[in-house]
Amino acid sequence: MDPAEALDFQKHGGTVTAIAVDDATGDVLMVAWMNELSFRKTIETGEVHYWSRSRDRLWHKGEESGNTQRVVGIYVDCDGDAVVLRVEQRGRAACHTGKRSCFFRRLDDGTWVDEGEQVFDPAKVYGS
Amino acid sequence: MDPAEALDFQKHGGTVTAIAVDDATGDVLMVAWMNELSFRKTIETGEVHYWSRSRDRLWHKGEESGNTQRVVGIYVDCDGDAVVLRVEQRGRAACHTGKRSCFFRRLDDGTWVDEGEQVFDPAKVYGS
Repeated sequence: MDPAEALDFQKHGGTVTAIAVDDATGDVLMVAWMNELSFRKTIETGEVHYWSRSRDRLWHKGEESGNTQRVVGIYVDCDGDAVVLRVEQRGRAACHTGKRSCFFRRLDDGTWVDEGEQVFDPAKVYGS
Repeated sequence: MDPAEALDFQKHGGTVTAIAVDDATGDVLMVAWMNELSFRKTIETGEVHYWSRSRDRLWHKGEESGNTQRVVGIYVDCDGDAVVLRVEQRGRAACHTGKRSCFFRRLDDGTWVDEGEQVFDPAKVYGS
């Protein structure tokens, strides 16, 4: 069977929710979207490709920063509208802010506290 | 500041993506949605409340099965359209199939393999 058949791309405008988890630490790194093309590209290349809904195009994660994600494992959920990608995060950072994870703010007694590790300086990586 | 102000409910029809992570194991348990009401209810009660988009109503996770989720930590992502909820999963299972995690199928050489732990029998928990 074609593995893409287990995915339900209809619920979210041709995409499924894609959650990237750092295989080394188990932490959630980011969440984005995959359409059928990006799912196939990810399997074919072993590197995570999302579908950018804002730019409406295939997004090879790390294409600009070099912080690509190598696929270690792919999991699909019970109703097929979401996948978990266990990845090896190159450059140790997934977030465009230079933080390791996009989820770097924790709610502490009603206030969001920044507790993420700053891995790189985004001004140096992406330019101005 | 009101912590809900960090959340961008506009991108996904009044909701943010909500990813529940088992605080004991670090595994992703499920992904669902939260609107502002469910976010506030979650903070107020310390128990996870999602917004059911299919039923268009507040969804106190575990209200039927008893498998509620106690909040251990809440994280928001860089652009505020997703949260990670670290939870204590009561009944040890988050999925309506009786599996511990909704992400119980792993892609293995082109085939989805069921490798999740079956914690309960859904027919017994939800009836027929």
